[in-house]
Amino acid sequence: MLTGGALTVGGVLTGAAVTGEAPAPPKSTVDYGAQAVPFHGRHQAGVETPAQAHATFLALDLRPDVDRAALGRLMRLLTDDAARLTRGTAPLADGQPELAHVPARLTVTFGFGPRLFDAAGLAAQRPATLQPLPAFAIDKLQERWSGGDLLIQICADDPVTVAHAQRMLVKDSRSFATVRWTQRGFRRGRGMQDDGVTQRNVLGQLDGTGNPAPGSAVFAGAVWTDDGPQWLHGGTTVVVRRIRAELEAWDAADTVGKEFAVGRRLTDGAPLTGQRENDPPDFAAKNPIGFPVISEFSHVARAHVVGDRQRIFRRPYNYDEPPGPDGTADTGLIFAAYQRDIGAQFLPIQRNLAEADLLNEWITPIGSAVFAVPPGCEPDGWIGQGLLA
Amino acid sequence: MLTGGALTVGGVLTGAAVTGEAPAPPKSTVDYGAQAVPFHGRHQAGVETPAQAHATFLALDLRPDVDRAALGRLMRLLTDDAARLTRGTAPLADGQPELAHVPARLTVTFGFGPRLFDAAGLAAQRPATLQPLPAFAIDKLQERWSGGDLLIQICADDPVTVAHAQRMLVKDSRSFATVRWTQRGFRRGRGMQDDGVTQRNVLGQLDGTGNPAPGSAVFAGAVWTDDGPQWLHGGTTVVVRRIRAELEAWDAADTVGKEFAVGRRLTDGAPLTGQRENDPPDFAAKNPIGFPVISEFSHVARAHVVGDRQRIFRRPYNYDEPPGPDGTADTGLIFAAYQRDIGAQFLPIQRNLAEADLLNEWITPIGSAVFAVPPGCEPDGWIGQGLLA
Ligand code: HEM
Ligand code: HEM
Repeated sequence: MLTGGALTVGGVLTGAAVTGEAPAPPKSTVDYGAQAVPFHGRHQAGVETPAQAHATFLALDLRPDVDRAALGRLMRLLTDDAARLTRGTAPLADGQPELAHVPARLTVTFGFGPRLFDAAGLAAQRPATLQPLPAFAIDKLQERWSGGDLLIQICADDPVTVAHAQRMLVKDSRSFATVRWTQRGFRRGRGMQDDGVTQRNVLGQLDGTGNPAPGSAVFAGAVWTDDGPQWLHGGTTVVVRRIRAELEAWDAADTVGKEFAVGRRLTDGAPLTGQRENDPPDFAAKNPIGFPVISEFSHVARAHVVGDRQRIFRRPYNYDEPPGPDGTADTGLIFAAYQRDIGAQFLPIQRNLAEADLLNEWITPIGSAVFAVPPGCEPDGWIGQGLLA
Repeated sequence: MLTGGALTVGGVLTGAAVTGEAPAPPKSTVDYGAQAVPFHGRHQAGVETPAQAHATFLALDLRPDVDRAALGRLMRLLTDDAARLTRGTAPLADGQPELAHVPARLTVTFGFGPRLFDAAGLAAQRPATLQPLPAFAIDKLQERWSGGDLLIQICADDPVTVAHAQRMLVKDSRSFATVRWTQRGFRRGRGMQDDGVTQRNVLGQLDGTGNPAPGSAVFAGAVWTDDGPQWLHGGTTVVVRRIRAELEAWDAADTVGKEFAVGRRLTDGAPLTGQRENDPPDFAAKNPIGFPVISEFSHVARAHVVGDRQRIFRRPYNYDEPPGPDGTADTGLIFAAYQRDIGAQFLPIQRNLAEADLLNEWITPIGSAVFAVPPGCEPDGWIGQGLLA
């Protein structure tokens, strides 16, 4: 019986007060598992899609004999798998078809690494911007987390769904490619916090505040490519950096130092010059003794850009691998950033940060890879068709 | 406005029809993140607790100088951490206190390995049943997944919550112990399916049907220890086996063969002699040509026991590590089984299975560890006090 006040549905106490006659509550009010993100469209899903709880970033290397025609066959196959999986149906030859029935906002996003263009004999079609990042003094890159010919980014709110989709996509890639690296990441689970609130990363920071808003014109202008090679229009580029968090040192630092390094408060993410998370940082504000309140060496000051088309869209996941025998954490971010143009947008920011960012004391890039993310496709097409067909 | 028919709350379409006046739906109806499982009580949480979506099983080895008194200090510290974390508050000296505020049904469950009793000078208090399992012909055990002096089982519906709790507990264990192994596992996320439905494992099987029901007298009689050393009364024992799924071969097998090996249907988990998941298997039923419908070599036939006090409670998690370069899956179950007495309950079943279980073709134990799980404690006590104080 529902008589106002708090409402318990499916064992979950909600804040809703519902009055009047009502049928018995359903067994569960939540069916996050059944939610599906459309696979087809002008853009690939998994970029503008509100970040799901779980992600696998998978980089494949093409086998030596894979040419343009073989790549076309591979991408047709993977597109078909992805289209089925994302709507909650099993791909052909799925060994565990029952695992496919919980799409949980699954998205599968493909990206093409620099060498793929050589393999396809299409070096002239490689976007000029698509090159391995230059080395930075802060880097301690490891081969095992770097490079790759083909990115498969698999995101869903359910970890079993991610594991199953990954299995299918890897299986179907096998005769064309080997697995170069696999990075598994996570964020707060769906339903654990209100949708849309900014999440905390493993350093405890609210991470994402300064992003262009998905769905906005600013987002579109910053992220969706509209120049360079025609085949990439409506696509984007992604930089995937594995960035270790030096958690032992971070734990030892005090709150003032941590907040000074970023330029935002840990409690609520507000800029040191503001009251609320979304207050714009005031980089000109000075403290009583004349120093900037937000240090010019803080992460947000260094990372901040003025032109909207210069911005990048960050969609990071946490990683957390088993600690060492002495308990040392092996944790950090799978930092995925999307932008029209790596050279014009990502690189200047990364250079600024590498040069002088107080946060560098606590973060170390250990992997780096770049991919061109083709536009989406319609049901009769496949991802990469504009390049490879 | 709610006018009957489907109801959208927090962006989620539910099956509920609600009529009459009602206030605007709240921003989110779901707050799985705020749900807390009481830490204190007669039994430790995390055994009878409906399995959360994420788990870390962490085995520590005590440092050589750790004696009974040091163990007492360690368990006091970890109990305090666990009591705070599980109610959503940060432990003392938490470097990321904000990450503690989403308990998400966090449970922390401690277990004592065989060698801990020697370290404490309490060999006489070791339950007779607490011994490393004997070797089985099916085993391919690896040291890196086996043994351990202290188990910390951390489960929550949110992966960030698990990572943060793990970090705190490892940090506070550091001066007392080293990390022997860490196993991270997952099940379907909270809210992805109705609460309480049987889940599928990475082999696509409904896994858990034959379990004693949590909360039932049968569960209590099978799981909570009521004889042997007094200090363990109200506790239990756990066997943690890492069992690799030979997924390549499983994928290649046909449905009939897979169902025959288990004795249950893949689609709905019903026994081959029944219609519905919860129909009791009829091991006497014969097919038209006189053979048992459920093979005597099937997994359920071999694993089935008659006496209620002989049963075990399985609370497995899936694991899925990065695939090999050739795409070979590295996946399986972190098979955790709880019972009053390992020798009297787990061992006979495991022997039966090792001897002849059709499923053995597709599963391989690669890790094995046993722990005594002390009873719970009240707010003024600590876990293990009955043994170590
Ligand atoms: C582990 C590594 C990193 C951590 C922990 C981190 C953390 C943060 C935090 C806490 C903020 C403030 C809140 C927000 O706007 O999200 C921020 C802002 C930002 N970060 Fe990072 N960051 C990392 C790496 C990077 C990298 C590699 C880049 C790009 C090369 C980058 C670019 C930005 C940008 C563009 C902003 C927004 C600045 C603005 O307000 O305009 N970050 N980051
Ligand atoms: C990867 C390894 C394993 C897999 C995939 C697996 C799978 C299954 C499945 C699908 C069922 C039927 C549904 C259910 O009742 O849950 C089942 C039942 C069962 N399994 Fe396993 N199992 C595994 C290992 C083990 C081990 C190591 C043991 C104990 C030593 C065990 C003990 C049982 C028991 C007691 C039952 C219930 C039998 C009954 O109906 O009375 N299983 N298992």
